[in-house]
Amino acid sequence: MNFSSKLLENAVLEFSKLPGIGQKTALRLVLHLLNQDKSDVERFSVAMTKLRNEIQHCRVCFNISDHTVCEICASHKRDRGTICVVEDTRDVMAIENTNQYNGVYHVLGGLISPMDGVGPSDLEVDTLVERIKANEVREVIFALSATMEGDTTIFYLHKRLKDFKINISTIARGIAFGGELEYVDEITLGRSIATRVPYESSLAK
Amino acid sequence: MNFSSKLLENAVLEFSKLPGIGQKTALRLVLHLLNQDKSDVERFSVAMTKLRNEIQHCRVCFNISDHTVCEICASHKRDRGTICVVEDTRDVMAIENTNQYNGVYHVLGGLISPMDGVGPSDLEVDTLVERIKANEVREVIFALSATMEGDTTIFYLHKRLKDFKINISTIARGIAFGGELEYVDEITLGRSIATRVPYESSLAK
Repeated sequence: MNFSSKLLENAVLEFSKLPGIGQKTALRLVLHLLNQDKSDVERFSVAMTKLRNEIQHCRVCFNISDHTVCEICASHKRDRGTICVVEDTRDVMAIENTNQYNGVYHVLGGLISPMDGVGPSDLEVDTLVERIKANEVREVIFALSATMEGDTTIFYLHKRLKDFKINISTIARGIAFGGELEYVDEITLGRSIATRVPYESSLAK
Repeated sequence: MNFSSKLLENAVLEFSKLPGIGQKTALRLVLHLLNQDKSDVERFSVAMTKLRNEIQHCRVCFNISDHTVCEICASHKRDRGTICVVEDTRDVMAIENTNQYNGVYHVLGGLISPMDGVGPSDLEVDTLVERIKANEVREVIFALSATMEGDTTIFYLHKRLKDFKINISTIARGIAFGGELEYVDEITLGRSIATRVPYESSLAK
């Protein structure tokens, strides 16, 4: 593209480094910012640098947090005997939004993926083991994506945790609520038949 | 959404003010930034504030520019007798990318749109008239969008400029190159028949 200004070109270049943002979208966003008040653009920029410079990882669950211990781990209302193991912050948010979970979390920071060179040592696995050793934990719930990487990670974690006297569970997999049977993919449908549950236990408590 | 951090919530809020960016996309982009080096995020932020604080409008053509006069207006290779009137910077870029135009520009900064409360006084119309009065201009080309607002603006500008001894033209409208006839909309096809051109003049010089 033929920019009339180096400043503009530079801003577009920075924006187009973001995932899913091409050069045309970047230009549209930058020109939008250019039409805003200086104070608005300043506020935008400060929010990004402040986030990057001041954010911490909770030293208990490794979720991102404004303090050394996150709000969930610090709360006395949460059941610390139940740990839900998730991939990243977004999953914590998604589960929190359901209002169905009152335990605490452990954020792995990724999934085991040999293809991408991510092994257990790159994730918060040892810290999870330490946490279970040091605290009275009754149950560990794996809430990981239903992908190859998620399954690999669950398999590995199960091996590491199976000698502890704790319940290990995974979130239920099957047909989504509201899902029409004819549009469900074969693997999900097939496995949901194979892993069928008694009617009574399918009702939420 | 249930954010675990005020810093994160604030950054997502700022990002989701951008056009076409919802809360989920904003979160994805912010988490991407969070995974970058501090220096990268700093560079991103600085590019935005620097752009907003230091950008100028060329005092000849009102295109955005790093200097008081833009590169195009300052260039001795451009034909200053031909002015192409466009809506905004993006149009200048688009025309520059064609490599088919060697004149200079005049950026209106918008189009006349009574619905949005934009009248001629909000645009760089008077400055265009002054520019034609003060300089030896042979031709003014309207390169505006083929919309109601574009047509209204052309109609108004033509009224303001018609007493000057200059050629006034608009960019050609019709079927796009590579366009298949059966997929062209009726208005474009109808008008392209009504405004048909002699075969010889349809060939680019």
